Order: sequence, then C-alpha cells, then structure tokens
Amino acid sequence: MTLRSEDDFLRLIDHYFPEKPDNVVLGRGDDCCIIQARSTLCLSTDLFLEDIHFRRAYFSPEDIGYKALAVNVSDIAGMGAVPRAFTLELMIPEKLPDDFWPRFFQGMSQLAQTYELTLAGGDLSRSAQLGIGLTIWGEPGESGRLLTRGNADPGDALFVIGNPGMARLGLNMLEQKGTAALEHWPRSVAAHLHPTPRVTEGQILSGLAGVRGCMDISDGLARDLPRFLRHCPQAHGADLDFGTVNLDPELLCWAEGSRREALRSVWLGGEDYGLLGACDTKSLPTLCAAIPEATYIGTLSATPGIRHNNAPMESRGFDHFEQ
Amino acid sequence: MTLRSEDDFLRLIDHYFPEKPDNVVLGRGDDCCIIQARSTLCLSTDLFLEDIHFRRAYFSPEDIGYKALAVNVSDIAGMGAVPRAFTLELMIPEKLPDDFWPRFFQGMSQLAQTYELTLAGGDLSRSAQLGIGLTIWGEPGESGRLLTRGNADPGDALFVIGNPGMARLGLNMLEQKGTAALEHWPRSVAAHLHPTPRVTEGQILSGLAGVRGCMDISDGLARDLPRFLRHCPQAHGADLDFGTVNLDPELLCWAEGSRREALRSVWLGGEDYGLLGACDTKSLPTLCAAIPEATYIGTLSATPGIRHNNAPMESRGFDHFEQ
Repeated sequence: MTLRSEDDFLRLIDHYFPEKPDNVVLGRGDDCCIIQARSTLCLSTDLFLEDIHFRRAYFSPEDIGYKALAVNVSDIAGMGAVPRAFTLELMIPEKLPDDFWPRFFQGMSQLAQTYELTLAGGDLSRSAQLGIGLTIWGEPGESGRLLTRGNADPGDALFVIGNPGMARLGLNMLEQKGTAALEHWPRSVAAHLHPTPRVTEGQILSGLAGVRGCMDISDGLARDLPRFLRHCPQAHGADLDFGTVNLDPELLCWAEGSRREALRSVWLGGEDYGLLGACDTKSLPTLCAAIPEATYIGTLSATPGIRHNNAPMESRGFDHFEQ
Repeated sequence: MTLRSEDDFLRLIDHYFPEKPDNVVLGRGDDCCIIQARSTLCLSTDLFLEDIHFRRAYFSPEDIGYKALAVNVSDIAGMGAVPRAFTLELMIPEKLPDDFWPRFFQGMSQLAQTYELTLAGGDLSRSAQLGIGLTIWGEPGESGRLLTRGNADPGDALFVIGNPGMARLGLNMLEQKGTAALEHWPRSVAAHLHPTPRVTEGQILSGLAGVRGCMDISDGLARDLPRFLRHCPQAHGADLDFGTVNLDPELLCWAEGSRREALRSVWLGGEDYGLLGACDTKSLPTLCAAIPEATYIGTLSATPGIRHNNAPMESRGFDHFEQ
C-alpha cells in the first residue's frame, strides 16, 4: 500500500483507530478535539525518534507503534490514573517499505485497544527523519486521587514495580547483536522493545492511602530517584537496600554471576517503564500483597545523598539528551 | 550560552516561561501536568519542522519560536475558544548557534505572554532535524460555546477574517529572495513569518448566535472550504463572491495589476491562519460591524461544488504533505 496523500493516511488511521465518542466529545477532523472533563485531567507528551529512541534495524514497525504509545501510557500509570485518549504527530520520511505504516498502526492500535484509548487528533508531516510525537491524557480512577512525585517523609519505604535494568541489558544486546539477541536474551530484549506500562498497578497504588507518591522510571533509578526526592519536603536522601531484589537469570548471566554487577545495572537502568514510589512502612505488606511484583528497595532519609551499605551511589543513569 | 544537558535547557525554559499555577494545577516536573477543567476543553497538536514548515535562511530564531506557537493558537481561535496552556516537544540538533535557543524562547514567550499561556510540560530530545511539536488546549470563553466546522445551511453567508493569499505570496518571495524580500513585500513577508492568530475575533464569533461554524484557514481556502462543507449536513457546495474582497497592494503588484490573478492567490493561499466561517445572512451586518476585518466571500448552496461566476473553482491548495 503506497501512501501518497494526507487523505490516504487519514483513511489508514480511521481503519485502525475507530472513533470512540465516549472518551471525547469531538474527535478527529476539526481544528481541535473536544474533551468533556469530569474533574481533573493529567496530560503528558513524549517524542519517539528514529536513531535516538529506536532503531529500525531491530524494532519491527509494530514494535515502534507499540512502544511510542506504551512509554506515554506509562506516564499516566505513574500518576495512578486511567489513560483515556491521545493525539499523534507523525514525522514521515519518503523512503519506507510499503507495509511500514499499516504495521506501525497495527502495533499501536493493539495497545490502544487494551486500554480503550481514543486517538483524538493529530498532525502529519513529511520529514527527513522518522519520528512520533504523542500527547496522552487520563483521569483519576476510582480512588479519585492522582499520585505525584515525592510527598514522602524520612522513614517511608521506597519500592519499585517492574524489573529495572532489564531494558538496558536488552538495548545493549540488541545494539551488539541485532535481532539475533532475541535467542539468548528474550526477556531483556522484550523489556526494551515491548515494555508493559503499569496501569493497573498505578491505579491500585492510588487507592492505597499509605502510598505517598509515585513516578514512572524512564531514565533509570539512578536519575529518577533524585527527581523523586526533589519533591519530598523533608526526605532529602535514601538508604538503599537491594537485599530482596529478585534478579532475572539473564541479568545474572550477563553479569557472569556477580550479584553486585547485576545490581549496578538495576540501579543505572534506563527505559524501564516500571514504577518507583514511596509508602509508609506499615502499608508495605498490604501493598506487596496487592501487587506481587512490588519490591522494597530502601528507606527515605532526612540525610541528603543516596547510599547503599553506607557508601554513596554513583548518580549517572541513562540520558538520551547528553552529547 | 552553550546548552549541554537537559538541566541547562530546563533552566532556560524556566527563565522564559514562569509557571502560572492558575491555568494548571500542577505544571512541569512530574510525569504529567494536571489540569483542572471547568467543563469542556478543546485541544490541538501541530508539528513545526525545519525545511518543511520553516527555513532558517529567512526565519530568525524568534520567528521560529513565535510561529510554532502561533499556528497552534490559531487552532484554538478557530474554535472560538480561549487558549490556556500548552506542552512543547523540542527536537534539538547538535549544531545550532549558541544564541539560537534563548532567541527561540524569547519569540515564543512573547506570544505566550500576550495570551497568558502556561507552558505546562514537554519533552526534549537530541535529533538529526530541528523541529517542534506543540499541543495546546483552551476553554470556551464567555459565550460558553465552541465553534466547530460546518453546521451551516444552504443560503448562509460565508466569510473570512484575515488576508488570505498574503502568506503564500510572502513564502514565494522569501524562497526567491531570502530576507531581501522584506524590502518590497513587507506585509506579505510578515504574514508568512509572523501570522496573527485571530483569538479575539474567534471569541466574538462564538458570542454571535447567528454564526453557525468556524475553522482556521491553514492550507488555503481551496483546501479548507471543502473541509468546512464536509461538516455541513445540507450545504454541499458554495457560490463564491469575491466582489468585496479588499486586495492588498502587494498582491496586486505581484499580479501586475490583474485582480483576477490576485484573487487566484487569495483562493489558493496557504498558511493564512485567518478564520473561515458561516453565519445566517441577517447576522452578517452585525458580524461585520463587530469585526471590521471580516469579509463576505459567498453563499452556501445545496448544489455540490464550489463555483465563482458559475464556473467551477480549481480545488488544489497548499499541501505540506504531498510529494
């Protein structure tokens, strides 16, 4: 299928994204979409650019469509909210295989269907570089509460949901071996290509009164934990305890059995799209019972700095931006 | 000023865009911004890419920042709404002059201040290509009404606000002569580099009961009028009457005095960012008194097709997308 005009594209989009007027009053096709907001909305925007955020050498078109949306859904999950709808900016280079866009929309629409997301609008443009810009919004779930970063006190417990470090390992293996990495590193490759946004878990957290704050881990714990602490009025530091962190055999294999080396990767991470949060200590058992994948990773402290076994942790995680 | 890290950029953004917490409950710095919506919101998203939508040869950094926001504000104006806040995606190539980004933010923030817009969030990424993605939202003004496209009936009057055709002429002159075009074509060059979103006019329209529908003219009347008609249940065509269209001397000069040739440029246009709307005929005098720049351009008809002096108009306007 060759896409020659804007109308061709719009027809393809209509095919994969039927309008769902319950989420938006007015969808695509006007100057703006119109949203009927019950109370508060939370909204986030992210870029997903070729050779910065993904490579076509090992991302299938379906993976690109899926992940462009998944990383945005993860921001809604980080607020403990219910994702509702999104707009899409497509930067369209001339030379792409004919089946690229149908497969791209296939991957994206599959995830959209999972969460009943409406594609409410967008923009298309020719471009030198393949890229996607996506803006998503959501609403508070049953709890009525949105979880912001920080808000936690010294003594509160830090927890993660997901498997930090796996996506970083997957990226490294894909960069080294291309799609052949899948054979020996299936779970870490999947963590990079096909991250699972923690929407259900985020909503459970927002319903637990003892949960203070939450964020999604996109740049690795080493970068994201300091960002979380910046929003805590009195907890200026943390004492990490990775004793109960369950290490995936792929991480241990890569680290040649060194738990220390594997934990370094968990700490530095990058593109994990799990959740990082804090709760009061007496809520921790309830939380871990409600979300089996939640793992305690330390305790907040009034003392500035992040420590592990009393030694300061290195603070550089993953940065798409730095040269 | 050299911008080496995401933090450098965020500091620069904080300098030019102070947070205005009255428009958003929670601004930049979390997974999402939080918006307290009174009732409905209208939201739009647009790309603004180097060598597709602008050229650095004749756009100053201030112009790029200004226009990236202005074309989005124009979508809110097209709904007759009040723009409130926006998010910004910046695609940042490595080699730009040191003063590019401060000047870019200067141009953008000037327009943001005019409308008291909050920069509520965004994303930054290294990129091969310079580009901006922008998502903006607004609310109904005092009238409580949002103006969608179409909704008009046969016999209703069509009107435009602004000077269609001028931006197209400005683009052609800038492409031919670069910034030297400014000397002989100051108003058309300004129409291309620095379009004025018709926010006040849009809100006046939303308050006039006789106004049926409205849209912003971004791709030229030739493309946008059929889009307007598509949303009219019974008015499938239009009979144009350009008799009262006031032609700018620059347009007439370019057309070597031929009113016919100048009107062809008005019709084809492109990037005009004026407004196109329809009202019942008895409201037209009130409308023109309230908005002196409004010009009657024809009447809607049940007969399909767009005609001028009973001859069909050519239908191809400006398309960023086509090859």
